[in-house]
Amino acid sequence: MSRTLIDITLPFSGQLSVWPGDPPIAISSSRELLPRLMHLSFGNHTGTHVDAPAHFIADGATVDRLPLETLIGPAWVVHLPDLAEITAAALAGAGIPPGTTRLLIRTDNSDRPLTSVFDPTYVALTADAVEWLLAHAVRLVGLDAPSLDLFGSAEFPAHNVLLAAGVIFVERLALGGIAPGAYELICLPLPLLNGDGAPTRAVLVRET
Amino acid sequence: MSRTLIDITLPFSGQLSVWPGDPPIAISSSRELLPRLMHLSFGNHTGTHVDAPAHFIADGATVDRLPLETLIGPAWVVHLPDLAEITAAALAGAGIPPGTTRLLIRTDNSDRPLTSVFDPTYVALTADAVEWLLAHAVRLVGLDAPSLDLFGSAEFPAHNVLLAAGVIFVERLALGGIAPGAYELICLPLPLLNGDGAPTRAVLVRET
Repeated sequence: MSRTLIDITLPFSGQLSVWPGDPPIAISSSRELLPRLMHLSFGNHTGTHVDAPAHFIADGATVDRLPLETLIGPAWVVHLPDLAEITAAALAGAGIPPGTTRLLIRTDNSDRPLTSVFDPTYVALTADAVEWLLAHAVRLVGLDAPSLDLFGSAEFPAHNVLLAAGVIFVERLALGGIAPGAYELICLPLPLLNGDGAPTRAVLVRET
Repeated sequence: MSRTLIDITLPFSGQLSVWPGDPPIAISSSRELLPRLMHLSFGNHTGTHVDAPAHFIADGATVDRLPLETLIGPAWVVHLPDLAEITAAALAGAGIPPGTTRLLIRTDNSDRPLTSVFDPTYVALTADAVEWLLAHAVRLVGLDAPSLDLFGSAEFPAHNVLLAAGVIFVERLALGGIAPGAYELICLPLPLLNGDGAPTRAVLVRET
């Protein structure tokens, strides 16, 4: 049996777009004599990142305290192309195995070119899809979008319902070309003390 | 068989010390209305972090291109207490199994209290220890110090010799209480585009 490691993290750079109102990404040399050393300045929800329950829930777990046992383990990848929104019906018809606790959703977002301009038309979850995930006891949800909620959503159903249930989000995953099916997920956010989220590296392991 | 996951990463906060001359760590609320959102500002060698070969070697691999196959895999932890320096003799007498490609070294550094004041008296490698690691073909070296080289070292033997050989460094590991022996290491730095290093999360997996 051989093991393949697949990076599903966006390269971290000033070319990433940021959520409207978030701090810009600034990367510069930090020392004249050692120009390779970098000074980094950015918001904690930049790039491929984890939302901890504390992002929306006052007494929710912070990103430094998320259980490694949830961040690492078997995951299922679905591919839902040609959708403007991810509905409960789309999830119900996607062949997700019962008992899936970590679900990564690849959409057409992954096929769009990377740009530093924020694109509000990304594909994300409808309120009934959020209820479907809650009912199916998913503990970690990953998506190739800047948010699990659609842009302009007034109720933020994913953030309000799933983070309240302790679900971990992984946003802005790079899922282009990833075949649907079973993997081991390794998602290791920076342990930002008391942070409501943090940039993460995420890797899929496939045994073949 | 059961699996234990052990975090060996320092919590990332403004309480970490930084290398003299590196940018200070600044963490603040990024939005008045959403005070949980954070603005982060720091140098790319802050906290538990990876040094890529590009840190010292002009055409060396950058941190976003380090092979996941080296960052993840079997590792050996040694405990070398009561030393001011890690010598070749200390490594030779530590019972490191032949063929060890990932070596993590716990010293008394891990027993010192965390403070935001940089402590230049940390334990690190002598030049002959560097030669020992090179001769034994270690591909990744982790240490619970801000540098693999002793402070004030003029020659930077670890940085000049091991990074030139393509070895990956993991610095400022949190190894307090970690028992020596065999583990699986998962070390996932942020994939900072063209970076000479980046903060990382590092986890040990023990099967018992």
